[in-house]
Amino acid sequence: MSRLRSIQDEQVFEEGHDAMGNAPTIRVGVLGLGTVGSSLVRLIAQQGQAIETRTGIRLEVTRAAVRNLDAPRGLASATPRIVDDPMSVVEADDVDLVVELMGGVEPARQLIERAIRLRKPVVSANKELIASCSRELFELADAAGVDLLFEASVAGGIPLLRAIRESLAGDRIRRVLGIVNGTTNFILSQMTEQGTDFGESLAEAQALGYAEADPTADVEGFDAASKAAIIATLAFGADVTSDDVSRQGITAISAADIAAAEALGYTIKLLAVVERADAGIGARVEPAMVPLSHPLASVRDAFNALFIEADAVGELMLYGRGAGGMPTASAVLGDVVDAAKNLVGGGAPRHGSLESVPMLDSTATGSQYAIRMSVDDESGVLADIASEFGRNGVSIESVRQRGVDQQAQLTFVTHYSNQEAVQATLRAVEQLDCVVSIDSVIAVIGAAT
Amino acid sequence: MSRLRSIQDEQVFEEGHDAMGNAPTIRVGVLGLGTVGSSLVRLIAQQGQAIETRTGIRLEVTRAAVRNLDAPRGLASATPRIVDDPMSVVEADDVDLVVELMGGVEPARQLIERAIRLRKPVVSANKELIASCSRELFELADAAGVDLLFEASVAGGIPLLRAIRESLAGDRIRRVLGIVNGTTNFILSQMTEQGTDFGESLAEAQALGYAEADPTADVEGFDAASKAAIIATLAFGADVTSDDVSRQGITAISAADIAAAEALGYTIKLLAVVERADAGIGARVEPAMVPLSHPLASVRDAFNALFIEADAVGELMLYGRGAGGMPTASAVLGDVVDAAKNLVGGGAPRHGSLESVPMLDSTATGSQYAIRMSVDDESGVLADIASEFGRNGVSIESVRQRGVDQQAQLTFVTHYSNQEAVQATLRAVEQLDCVVSIDSVIAVIGAAT
Repeated sequence: MSRLRSIQDEQVFEEGHDAMGNAPTIRVGVLGLGTVGSSLVRLIAQQGQAIETRTGIRLEVTRAAVRNLDAPRGLASATPRIVDDPMSVVEADDVDLVVELMGGVEPARQLIERAIRLRKPVVSANKELIASCSRELFELADAAGVDLLFEASVAGGIPLLRAIRESLAGDRIRRVLGIVNGTTNFILSQMTEQGTDFGESLAEAQALGYAEADPTADVEGFDAASKAAIIATLAFGADVTSDDVSRQGITAISAADIAAAEALGYTIKLLAVVERADAGIGARVEPAMVPLSHPLASVRDAFNALFIEADAVGELMLYGRGAGGMPTASAVLGDVVDAAKNLVGGGAPRHGSLESVPMLDSTATGSQYAIRMSVDDESGVLADIASEFGRNGVSIESVRQRGVDQQAQLTFVTHYSNQEAVQATLRAVEQLDCVVSIDSVIAVIGAAT
Repeated sequence: MSRLRSIQDEQVFEEGHDAMGNAPTIRVGVLGLGTVGSSLVRLIAQQGQAIETRTGIRLEVTRAAVRNLDAPRGLASATPRIVDDPMSVVEADDVDLVVELMGGVEPARQLIERAIRLRKPVVSANKELIASCSRELFELADAAGVDLLFEASVAGGIPLLRAIRESLAGDRIRRVLGIVNGTTNFILSQMTEQGTDFGESLAEAQALGYAEADPTADVEGFDAASKAAIIATLAFGADVTSDDVSRQGITAISAADIAAAEALGYTIKLLAVVERADAGIGARVEPAMVPLSHPLASVRDAFNALFIEADAVGELMLYGRGAGGMPTASAVLGDVVDAAKNLVGGGAPRHGSLESVPMLDSTATGSQYAIRMSVDDESGVLADIASEFGRNGVSIESVRQRGVDQQAQLTFVTHYSNQEAVQATLRAVEQLDCVVSIDSVIAVIGAAT
């Protein structure tokens, strides 16, 4: 390590400082000039002088790669040299640090690996890539002694990963609950506030540009699952990929679910949940009922928030914009400055080796659950159903009954229960003659302190 | 810089790594073993192995200084060598890094300066000290090439300073609104939720241990003013001390103020406000009306929160416990790990030189204001008062009238106005025969986006 550092020092000294003692310059190559990339170039132009004053480092975007050289990009006159061959940017002598904003696993992966092997630090906002191969990339970066930073890959401008990596470095994180997908949070906020159903709310999100024409990645929880994998990786030092994350989207959430949740004092949010238990790590994306008094309940529209539960610090929440060109570019630039400081100062970053920790099977984890069912409105029904809960070891915290025509709607909220026990209960309850249908089963988050 | 670094490298190599390639050890000296200090020693004992796995660095508390050697401290068997001479801890050969948790300006300042001159990084939770002489301490630390970190000095376990220093390094902060004093937030929460007056709520806070027997530092805003100075220093790279912060506490806030605020859709919070304008920097502590829809409105009890407004990232909020042994120790330990990494890795920290930026006179800054007054319940009164607002160039956003006996109570909410113009308006309004009394003037925070 010590030798590597001194080699780097010399390199930087040669490249950066000039004989007049001017600020060392770090030359940045940007792969991808979409919304975030062009915001980054603008932000560096605007903030370059302030950064130099504060850090003593001059940042200069020397090259950028785009897919299509003809597409308009609205960059200012400070436009860097733009090419359509990203590898040429990575390998250029006048690029010290690479920012990858292309997205997708390939060719981003090859480009990042090449940059690291050339001992160029990499800043990436690529959640798919980091969520699929963080272990290999961390090992490569540690072997080369360069930074691989990716704050913007989770929750845009919110400094979650730095908080986990640095601020909580001496703490033990038990659980992170995240609203990490702005599209679904917007849709659920609309359903809650306007009383609209899922389809209408999705259409409005699409009209406003919050949802893609094909909304699958958002509404089925794929986007949130990638982010959950990255959060679990950093929070627990464990090798967790998006394939390890169990996933349930919001397409099945109805206006009736939201009304029933409200009647009980809850709001429904799509949460990324990562938690550590003795037996392993749980990571899932699921719609959950959040108590209205919980800080996550007030996160509306397309905002994101992360609620961290750790042994020493207790409860911590970070809230902000999870997407958008400028917020995301702000997070990218924070990483660029960090990596540039290490490059100039000779700090040896360490991403650490990730443990292979057993993932908890989703049926092995537990939660509180809200179970809503339609039943015949007769005497004795509640007792019959409650006894099935008891027989399966699922204890009931509260039950709420509402009559509709000849039927009643019952909503049970369980105490903390094993998911397997809840499934067994549901199978038993479904067999009862008095039960017309089980209408929904939604996890319930406990109150914050 | 380059030479300094290589000297440090050698030192650490000699001290830290052994011939077997074991993890380098950083030996920590702790000044002060009160609630936070003893929590820190326990936390290092609990988390030491995890930290070593993650960072490759072993932390060992070798020495601690206390004021009274006879006081019980309830430390585990991992108790370090405890003395009552803090300078001997700073100077000890087996102390590589100093944690200062004594509080107060002297002798903490001398001890920290000595540690820095010995090239030992310092972690401090001492808001009084940092808020009074950050400039000198930063310059000293930069000259010695060592870290001076103080995350725990503002808002306990909330990673605010790291977010400002690192995550937002490439952004431009416009304003920070902070609920940074748990005692006053608890008191205001009680007044709001229980309808109690200030005196009762203070007594309850004292009974629960949230307020001191002499609550002056909290309720008069001195504590929050120190934190505002530190936030302004880091957010704007400016030399701001607690003397630069204008200060108004909560002792004059009445149950009637809170009820009037609620009727208008606001809650009252004691805020630390730091903002940057073209002409300089404003820093103040004042009770303010926060819209109920604003994320800060839901920060209850003794929790703290910081709401950051920056050009690129937009709005960002950090929320958590602002005090308490373990939350604060968690923040201290995050800094210790950071400084230890730099010490081992040879990174050259840079605190940057602080600019002398003009402080805006409190009358030169502006805000929206809510002005509540008692008036005779006669026709024409509202017009008479409104014309005085107009004459002084203060525009009215809304007015609410409530009759009580022969009197009416009027609450005006102004648009954004210069404080000087508001003062002039109040002087003119007071002269009107129909005005019985001006009952309160409270700043109003605008809605979040």
